[in-house]
Amino acid sequence: MTDLRIAMAQINTCVGDIPGNAALVRERSRAAAERGARLVVFPEMTTTGYPIEDLALRASFQRAAERAVHAIAADLVTDGLGDLTVVLGTLGTNADGRPTNEAVVLRGGEVVSRYAKHHLPNYGVFDERRIFAPGEDPCVLTVDGARIGVVVCEDIWQDGGPVAAMAGEALDVLLVLNGSPFEEGKGIVRTELARKRAAEVGAPLVYVNMWGGQDDLVFDGHSFIVAADGAWMANAPGFEDALVTWDVPTGDGAPVQSEVVDFASDDEQVYRAVVTGLRDYVVKNGFQSIVLGVSGGIDSALTAAIAADAIGGENVVGVSMPSEFSSEHSKDDAADLCKRLGADYRVQPIAPLVDAFQAQLALTGVAEENLQARVRGVVLMAISNRENHLVIAPGNKSELATGYATIYDAGSIGGFAPLKDLDKTRVWDLARWRNAQARLLGEVEPIPVNSIEKPPSAELRPGQTDQDSLPDYALLDEVLDAYVEHAEGREELLARGFDEAVVEKVLSLVDRAEWKRRQYPLGPKVTALAFGRDRRLPVTSRWRERAE
Amino acid sequence: MTDLRIAMAQINTCVGDIPGNAALVRERSRAAAERGARLVVFPEMTTTGYPIEDLALRASFQRAAERAVHAIAADLVTDGLGDLTVVLGTLGTNADGRPTNEAVVLRGGEVVSRYAKHHLPNYGVFDERRIFAPGEDPCVLTVDGARIGVVVCEDIWQDGGPVAAMAGEALDVLLVLNGSPFEEGKGIVRTELARKRAAEVGAPLVYVNMWGGQDDLVFDGHSFIVAADGAWMANAPGFEDALVTWDVPTGDGAPVQSEVVDFASDDEQVYRAVVTGLRDYVVKNGFQSIVLGVSGGIDSALTAAIAADAIGGENVVGVSMPSEFSSEHSKDDAADLCKRLGADYRVQPIAPLVDAFQAQLALTGVAEENLQARVRGVVLMAISNRENHLVIAPGNKSELATGYATIYDAGSIGGFAPLKDLDKTRVWDLARWRNAQARLLGEVEPIPVNSIEKPPSAELRPGQTDQDSLPDYALLDEVLDAYVEHAEGREELLARGFDEAVVEKVLSLVDRAEWKRRQYPLGPKVTALAFGRDRRLPVTSRWRERAE
Repeated sequence: MTDLRIAMAQINTCVGDIPGNAALVRERSRAAAERGARLVVFPEMTTTGYPIEDLALRASFQRAAERAVHAIAADLVTDGLGDLTVVLGTLGTNADGRPTNEAVVLRGGEVVSRYAKHHLPNYGVFDERRIFAPGEDPCVLTVDGARIGVVVCEDIWQDGGPVAAMAGEALDVLLVLNGSPFEEGKGIVRTELARKRAAEVGAPLVYVNMWGGQDDLVFDGHSFIVAADGAWMANAPGFEDALVTWDVPTGDGAPVQSEVVDFASDDEQVYRAVVTGLRDYVVKNGFQSIVLGVSGGIDSALTAAIAADAIGGENVVGVSMPSEFSSEHSKDDAADLCKRLGADYRVQPIAPLVDAFQAQLALTGVAEENLQARVRGVVLMAISNRENHLVIAPGNKSELATGYATIYDAGSIGGFAPLKDLDKTRVWDLARWRNAQARLLGEVEPIPVNSIEKPPSAELRPGQTDQDSLPDYALLDEVLDAYVEHAEGREELLARGFDEAVVEKVLSLVDRAEWKRRQYPLGPKVTALAFGRDRRLPVTSRWRERAE
Repeated sequence: MTDLRIAMAQINTCVGDIPGNAALVRERSRAAAERGARLVVFPEMTTTGYPIEDLALRASFQRAAERAVHAIAADLVTDGLGDLTVVLGTLGTNADGRPTNEAVVLRGGEVVSRYAKHHLPNYGVFDERRIFAPGEDPCVLTVDGARIGVVVCEDIWQDGGPVAAMAGEALDVLLVLNGSPFEEGKGIVRTELARKRAAEVGAPLVYVNMWGGQDDLVFDGHSFIVAADGAWMANAPGFEDALVTWDVPTGDGAPVQSEVVDFASDDEQVYRAVVTGLRDYVVKNGFQSIVLGVSGGIDSALTAAIAADAIGGENVVGVSMPSEFSSEHSKDDAADLCKRLGADYRVQPIAPLVDAFQAQLALTGVAEENLQARVRGVVLMAISNRENHLVIAPGNKSELATGYATIYDAGSIGGFAPLKDLDKTRVWDLARWRNAQARLLGEVEPIPVNSIEKPPSAELRPGQTDQDSLPDYALLDEVLDAYVEHAEGREELLARGFDEAVVEKVLSLVDRAEWKRRQYPLGPKVTALAFGRDRRLPVTSRWRERAE
């Protein structure tokens, strides 16, 4: 018996684009067959994209997904690929008519096997128990005499279940279809888990993951294969299309390594995740260009650089909106940034606009500061309205958490907020990484050094700096990470050794920010990258850690 | 053996306000004991409020809830109520340390029994599998020789489970602690279900529900008791505090009816739900006053009337922001409205503000219309900023679904949108109902008849009316209800007999509205009433019913 060549098709599907996703399957199947593969494996929910949320409950969508599966099977035969076994993910329904998250196996123009995911994740960013019914049956198929097990994503993250049940099945290989979102440091967790499951079934494990941005998630790809003994057999790079083949040993031969690539550094992975998230939001929604406010500060500078990397600097419009409190260096740095990026640079002074409101309203203090900030928001919306750009918001995680931002200003309006899940410390790190990367490649550094080095300021009153109102960012970010990201209470924060005055300050800032979002709106539904945990908290809540 | 007097304490808890909720328990327990009750039953999650979302996962919050339970038990003894049995809901943890949705039984200063909810709803507005571990044990206690079963909310909505398991337990009464949100027509569903479960266990069923607004939900109360044979024994009114007592027959005596009140009409229930939702958003978040734009149109008129009913007309600020396209009758109707409500009426003409932007941006068409609308938003935010009012948004469900609104205008900014879940047809119905109610009570009609009768218009260009862009509202609302609320596809809509051109028009409006929300932000997270189903859809999606 010769070895069985399989292909991992790491693709970027789009939610709801059933014809587009089906076309990807057809094209990648042809490419896999040309490279001698007998079996090709696609990621979770291939036909529909992932995650589809309550679209799963729409009968018309269920029908469309099922029609697509049969059309793909027929098209493969038309393409002369009737002998190829194709494993892909789709939306199915069970005997009770409830939606299921399925893997289907196509061969010879037919659906030869179906498997419904057993373990439905319902934590963090996942809500699968809301929309899917769990499957109960295992799936083992035979291709060219090799015994092949199939499971989907969460099935390998839970002990027991379908993988444990296949331990006695004498499998030659276990296929896992995934829609696994990017999180920093998740690569090693996934591979260790895969090694454990490969040992459990005594067979190589093929982990095929999707990549691309979908709303507030980014999927990284990084598909891989480990042998039964855990040896690294093959892997795909992150954040791009890949088709990786590997020969499953079906006789007594030892497994042989095929394509292997290095993992990028953490900073590079995060940067590429952010670029991917923004690019796919633009492309999948059919936008062509982006507009944002450029203040000369680090947040808008990094955001503009990310936008230029995502869709090209020539498709980015940077609008400088100086007020009477804007320093000369701010205007210079903003102009310099746009020049480096090849972006369209425009200037719209806001003094006449603010004066018109002030003639009627005579605001003072914070209300006056917020007015300046919101007038900028209206200017961006108007330019976007006139020229059809997507507005993006440069607000970062530290300022959103502490409320150090005006709701509806140029930093918070927009359809997508690339930095929303990056704290300020990370914003500086990524800016430095991106410039270093440019130097390495002999390219122009995209971000003016001055924007990185100068003390951060909102410039809404003379001489203002962020540290007038906030603790030093390095310390602030550490406390926020513990309090917001890891849900630690006041007691735990003090036990870690944080200074009591700093803890009080940060908790009161976060409480106040939450309250502001109740009085004024929660701000736009800025779409952001969920690297960390996804927390869902009540809006109206009197719970205060400080009072515990 | 004498009959056992029990009390249903229908209260309005606040999420996170553990001391406040505990004080309510103490006060209502005293009142129940004064009325001769031996047992008092509170709603689901009494100590913490409901729903608490991911607060359940915060260890500090779990500790605080548990401390509160023991403090309440001790306080009851201090109050001389050591003999009273108190059943209330709280956040517990199981043997694995995972959060549970519990009923606890207090007597003599101790927690004498605990029950963890078995069935965790995870559909519509519920996400309980995300945060709670299910319980597995039943709970039957004895009070004055009577056998009493305890379950929580969803436990009675699923066949089988803890209720079925208690069928052989010879119960004298079954207590159900609920956090059941208001939906139109739900009252009859609840009572029929309760009758079925009462028959199943062969004992009366005591259904205690919370009332009040919590973010995008409104709980209606409407607590009730049915006998084993389904007879109506007692009930509480909707949308208010109530303490209803009833004597559980423990010997051979027949059950005797106690307090019974009529249900209000559907229009009255919906109106009271909307008022409750807004009032609790204001009160629970600590606001004192509300500001909104008043255009003379029906949406802002009804919204202002609701605001006045919620917190008093003297705490409402109505801002008229006429443009060059505003008709005289619009200004008159807005002034008349505020006079009827006793609201603070202000006029801020927007022409000078629009002119200042136009001098720099020279917008035309829709961009110019949107600019006018957004300038109004900035004016409201500024007034709110200066005077600390909550901004509310008068946008209705029909216009939000079809995108017949400017994102960030005076109709869509704000912390709360009272009409967000009411279609336009219902807006008119409720306005007429509210005026009729005033006539019935001999009070001033709050809403100018002209605002109800005139053709709706955004007045963003000369002679504009809504029906230039939209189908007649009666038809539009019918199609939207089928398409959006009931998730029907194009095929189903046509099969119902809707005209194909109308279906195409509505689907394309909704698609376009979804796209607009991608280019510009999704708008504020307006908090609204979920009377209907809660749908969660992907933002980025290429699914189009029209192409099915």
